[in-house]
Amino acid sequence: MKKSDINLVVIGGGTGSFTLLQAFKGSFDSITALVNMADNGGSSGMLRDELGVLPPGDIRQCLVALSPAPELRDLFNYRFDNGTLKGHTLGNIFLSALEKTTGNFTQAVKSASKILRITGQVIPITTVDTHLVMLDSEKKTITGQFLIENTDMSLETKPELSLEPNAGINPEAREALLKADIIVIAPGNLYTSLAPALLVRGVGDALKESKAKKVYICNLVTKPKQTDNYDVDDYASEIERFIGGPVLDYVFYNNDEPPADLLNRYTHDGEYLVKYDPKSAPERHYQVIGLPLIAKEEVHVKEGDPMAQNRSLIRHDPYLLIPEILAIYEK
Amino acid sequence: MKKSDINLVVIGGGTGSFTLLQAFKGSFDSITALVNMADNGGSSGMLRDELGVLPPGDIRQCLVALSPAPELRDLFNYRFDNGTLKGHTLGNIFLSALEKTTGNFTQAVKSASKILRITGQVIPITTVDTHLVMLDSEKKTITGQFLIENTDMSLETKPELSLEPNAGINPEAREALLKADIIVIAPGNLYTSLAPALLVRGVGDALKESKAKKVYICNLVTKPKQTDNYDVDDYASEIERFIGGPVLDYVFYNNDEPPADLLNRYTHDGEYLVKYDPKSAPERHYQVIGLPLIAKEEVHVKEGDPMAQNRSLIRHDPYLLIPEILAIYEK
Repeated sequence: MKKSDINLVVIGGGTGSFTLLQAFKGSFDSITALVNMADNGGSSGMLRDELGVLPPGDIRQCLVALSPAPELRDLFNYRFDNGTLKGHTLGNIFLSALEKTTGNFTQAVKSASKILRITGQVIPITTVDTHLVMLDSEKKTITGQFLIENTDMSLETKPELSLEPNAGINPEAREALLKADIIVIAPGNLYTSLAPALLVRGVGDALKESKAKKVYICNLVTKPKQTDNYDVDDYASEIERFIGGPVLDYVFYNNDEPPADLLNRYTHDGEYLVKYDPKSAPERHYQVIGLPLIAKEEVHVKEGDPMAQNRSLIRHDPYLLIPEILAIYEK
Repeated sequence: MKKSDINLVVIGGGTGSFTLLQAFKGSFDSITALVNMADNGGSSGMLRDELGVLPPGDIRQCLVALSPAPELRDLFNYRFDNGTLKGHTLGNIFLSALEKTTGNFTQAVKSASKILRITGQVIPITTVDTHLVMLDSEKKTITGQFLIENTDMSLETKPELSLEPNAGINPEAREALLKADIIVIAPGNLYTSLAPALLVRGVGDALKESKAKKVYICNLVTKPKQTDNYDVDDYASEIERFIGGPVLDYVFYNNDEPPADLLNRYTHDGEYLVKYDPKSAPERHYQVIGLPLIAKEEVHVKEGDPMAQNRSLIRHDPYLLIPEILAIYEK
């Protein structure tokens, strides 16, 4: 069943978006990925610093997810492992060169989309060169997604996050949100992947204006020292804090348990399944839907796999979400 | 006038091939560029050393010459000017990543050809990882195209050149030579661009076996300390020394003079027009054809131009060659 009449928008970046987009592309004709642009670690961070380009890494992952051509996917995800190019993926370098020759990152993404023959479109949520900034409880500033991802927030109240400079939404991203029938906020690092996307000025307003059904797909496990003890409603309420108001219509969460040995490995690392407690919020403006969302097959990570960084071995089975999303659309 | 029934093969690599291919692609439907694979300088040399790939630079130039898409041409020729990527072109990095993911340089070139939507085909003349080696008059070995290009040969007799290891012809290159109607040996550095292509084991035999008309387009100017005082027949006889026998049917040379001020600039650098002396060889098995081959417009070199390295400001006007080549075919 393919739904060509649904305009589906996925907000995120990183592994969570990658997993959803890859699965959704077979079932939805019109997919738009809106991508967080605050990454400053690894290859993306190096290219930003050295060439003054926008961070290509998350864009590349979304492009690859939506490309039907296995050889081009492999090529764009190829990571050099020697010499001066070490650590860079071909796709990141390619996008940076395209930004240089077209003079425009949005145009660069469009050209790469054509070459990768992607289904749908990938749009940077902002085209402003911006960084995530956190103010900790002692009013100390921590700058950059990479550093914040490695910050212990366990002693903090909820972290104060902003973008510096205060980046505005890419007009094409706004248009996609307004035209959307369904907007999915992908699972991902709450404070370092979703926050920098949702904090872009104008994203909250566009989400409120849009008539789309808004769905948040909650993470499977907590992130140590950042979201310890968060339950489904904690995640959802942080999402809405970044957006600046109640916008979610549906929150999907996982109600299944993975095999005990796998769970133990996670527990050992301080990661726990995100639980849903019906009593934690007396009233909710969103509908909470529990589903057995854990992929049944254990994930084998290939070297050079785009998901090999910060990946979870406990993964969403995104295919299970497809009929649920279609059902929401038809409601 | 477009000739779709002529199989045209151009042997070379570097600027000479680039100039011919770019002009010829509008007039011939079936063009095959056979490319020298011994480059070990600059970006190509660095990639060979660090990644163990074959040298992509000359291949890239030929691909770009045959691509009809200006934005892709610009992208492939884009040269990074900062940071760890400095000095590399995107196209070189792209070809190296393709070689890694396809496991095969010939396949990599084919994939890149598709992406660049080229007219005709580009084929590495060998796929053996090989280097040009020169034995000087004191029997000292000089290894590598880059070093040999900067060697003073003025005290030598004709240089003894070989490939190490002794590389054999790529079967696809052999097939192209055997199927050809016209084979053009492009202008270029005699000892460091043409020799390493022609010295590949099997190239000479394929040239002798092929029923194609064989044309050599002689350089416009001499190279200081390498081909000082060489006339047209000296060039042609060196070409045939590398091939291992008399194979040329036609030799084109320039019989025009550029404006005096331009010529003076060359003379100042020790470069002189290559002259034709009808009396220098009493009998020739090839026909010598003089034409006013110098491009009338002075070439303005853009930054990032693929020809900005080792380029001549005195250039062939390759369009003048097209009717001559068609005339040869029809003979």
